[in-house]
Amino acid sequence: MIFQTIRQQQPLIHCITNYVVANFQANGLLALGASPVMADDSHEVEEMVAIAEALLINIGTLNDRTKEAMLLAGKKANTLGIPVILDPVGAGATVYRKETVHLLLTDIQFAVIRCNKGELAALVNVEWQQKGVDSGDGFIDIETEATLLAQRYNCIVIVTGEHDFMTDGVQSQWITGGNSQMTEVTGTGCLLSAICGAAYSSGEDPYSQLVETLTYYKKAAELASAFTEDIGDIQIALLNALHRLSKEGEASCIL
Amino acid sequence: MIFQTIRQQQPLIHCITNYVVANFQANGLLALGASPVMADDSHEVEEMVAIAEALLINIGTLNDRTKEAMLLAGKKANTLGIPVILDPVGAGATVYRKETVHLLLTDIQFAVIRCNKGELAALVNVEWQQKGVDSGDGFIDIETEATLLAQRYNCIVIVTGEHDFMTDGVQSQWITGGNSQMTEVTGTGCLLSAICGAAYSSGEDPYSQLVETLTYYKKAAELASAFTEDIGDIQIALLNALHRLSKEGEASCIL
Amino acid sequence: MIFQTIRQQQPLIHCITNYVVANFQANGLLALGASPVMADDSHEVEEMVAIAEALLINIGTLNDRTKEAMLLAGKKANTLGIPVILDPVGAGATVYRKETVHLLLTDIQFAVIRCNKGELAALVNVEWQQKGVDSGDGFIDIETEATLLAQRYNCIVIVTGEHDFMTDGVQSQWITGGNSQMTEVTGTGCLLSAICGAAYSSGEDPYSQLVETLTYYKKAAELASAFTEDIGDIQIALLNALHRLSKEGEASCIL
Repeated sequence: MIFQTIRQQQPLIHCITNYVVANFQANGLLALGASPVMADDSHEVEEMVAIAEALLINIGTLNDRTKEAMLLAGKKANTLGIPVILDPVGAGATVYRKETVHLLLTDIQFAVIRCNKGELAALVNVEWQQKGVDSGDGFIDIETEATLLAQRYNCIVIVTGEHDFMTDGVQSQWITGGNSQMTEVTGTGCLLSAICGAAYSSGEDPYSQLVETLTYYKKAAELASAFTEDIGDIQIALLNALHRLSKEGEASCIL
Repeated sequence: MIFQTIRQQQPLIHCITNYVVANFQANGLLALGASPVMADDSHEVEEMVAIAEALLINIGTLNDRTKEAMLLAGKKANTLGIPVILDPVGAGATVYRKETVHLLLTDIQFAVIRCNKGELAALVNVEWQQKGVDSGDGFIDIETEATLLAQRYNCIVIVTGEHDFMTDGVQSQWITGGNSQMTEVTGTGCLLSAICGAAYSSGEDPYSQLVETLTYYKKAAELASAFTEDIGDIQIALLNALHRLSKEGEASCIL
Repeated sequence: MIFQTIRQQQPLIHCITNYVVANFQANGLLALGASPVMADDSHEVEEMVAIAEALLINIGTLNDRTKEAMLLAGKKANTLGIPVILDPVGAGATVYRKETVHLLLTDIQFAVIRCNKGELAALVNVEWQQKGVDSGDGFIDIETEATLLAQRYNCIVIVTGEHDFMTDGVQSQWITGGNSQMTEVTGTGCLLSAICGAAYSSGEDPYSQLVETLTYYKKAAELASAFTEDIGDIQIALLNALHRLSKEGEASCIL
């Protein structure tokens, strides 16, 4: 199972990410046996990404200093064949985010874009009422738009929500399961994006590895929710579930 | 009850805050059903605050980049009639903080100032030995000084501590209860300030909404403390208590 | 016991640190009764460090703005006789980190360097394959190199790992115990460095205070691990253990 493979391979994931979820992302990667490294300055990101197995670019608390680092790290990763994951947090909330995402997509070849449907709408210019970094309200044909986006940027697109949709522009599928408590704590989507980096780099068939990742991340959510109804406990329960799944595999899924 | 109202209204709270407590603040707002968005760069804060129901300005890990963003966001919020909450973390600890707070108070009309007594002393120029971001030592007539401060800046002033004092310059009251464990974990005051933003925007009588907020935040502290004597558990126990109070109201207060 | 002494003395620890672990560090210091203050801007660090009992410099998410603040704060601390602790996170991972650490060591007299063996290798120019901020792979004679480093910079050097080594360049010792779960969550080393600042400033015999700190930090790890096998719970279990040790001393060590 992919989480067990990650634990065997222990990939180093370079995260240029936001300060709201950095601790949770680091612990989530560690829970799977991956190694996180957070470094966001242009003086060092090219060197840091060169020793990593994957790069995560998350625009959650963006500024011009980190934007420059994202561009440098992403281009370097492309040169070295290191997969780059984009998490366009709140892409539709401001022009600055939208333009930055456009610039990133123009200059960097991403392996995966992991977003919610509001962010998808921003990326494909569908009218949408984004609510900060939440998905917000509007109507979008996820299958069509995600597929077009995947084709345009030649990458895998993952749109998470109650059900997750994933496509590489040719094949596609829905992943069901999970628990709505995941939306009641911050960073569960951000962590998933980081884990997608670990999963992408752990094997020879990234598409299957990512499908499995989405499936078992939802399973981890179910395990966490079965453990507690209290929202404060969920972050930790999710880390525990990821840890168990990566150590014991499916056996730990029996509730 | 105000926490239930927040859950119904789901206000978006734009936080320009410090990186020490950002995760806890985000999860605390989510625990009440509010939506947090952290964005601190001048390129986007005016646009972000425009879609928010309240703005929190917290100077905990201040620098010139975020200071500029605070000023831009605060002025924009004033233009749009969006309430702005000030959390002058460690205002008395350095000249830089004191001057920044003075500048913020001069340029922005705040709806609420939420501080501890050491920070109050800094705001009203009472001699005080501030200890970093803790309240520190000294003597201050909280009632008199908070009332004068509220009158000078035409806003509500909340001074939290063992007992909380709140005034709008005319009426005032003390709120008792709570638990001293709250001072043994970081960010409980910062989270309260963020929640004040959510509460202020959720109804037509901000003063009453804030009194209720202080009352039930202390109740949440009691619920959390009843759950555990261990300090590591308190952050999570507080999130759980806030979550329950916002879902089940007073019924969840029976210990 | 040193944690009890820290609780009595309540030292203020000024941390210039990374945003990944800032919350955990703050709560860890609070769990021992110390007071954390995070401030990283050159406008205020000299003033902030002047009211602190110790300064922590942690380069985990370094940039030029915080680098300047580190230099200013460190020099000011030296002038005032306030002990400075260096945590050279991932020192060997990039040239930027290595050069910054060299500059810090040249301009500031540190009281303690707390590192892992990969970071030690970077500081003494031993060939090493650093893996991000993890210790990585290579061979190094810890005793010899740490002793030389301590002599060169006239400070205490602590190299943590499965066993911890500590030396002031003359005397030295190994500290055993602990639990490998500590390496599966982020920030346990960073927190230890912050606690070393609190311990150093709490008494007249820093060397002994630090030996005791390492001993009881490992004891706290054992207590935490005895409480849970789940990695998500460990951060909190460690905070709980530190809290108990600082309140009840050795009595709380009986498993």
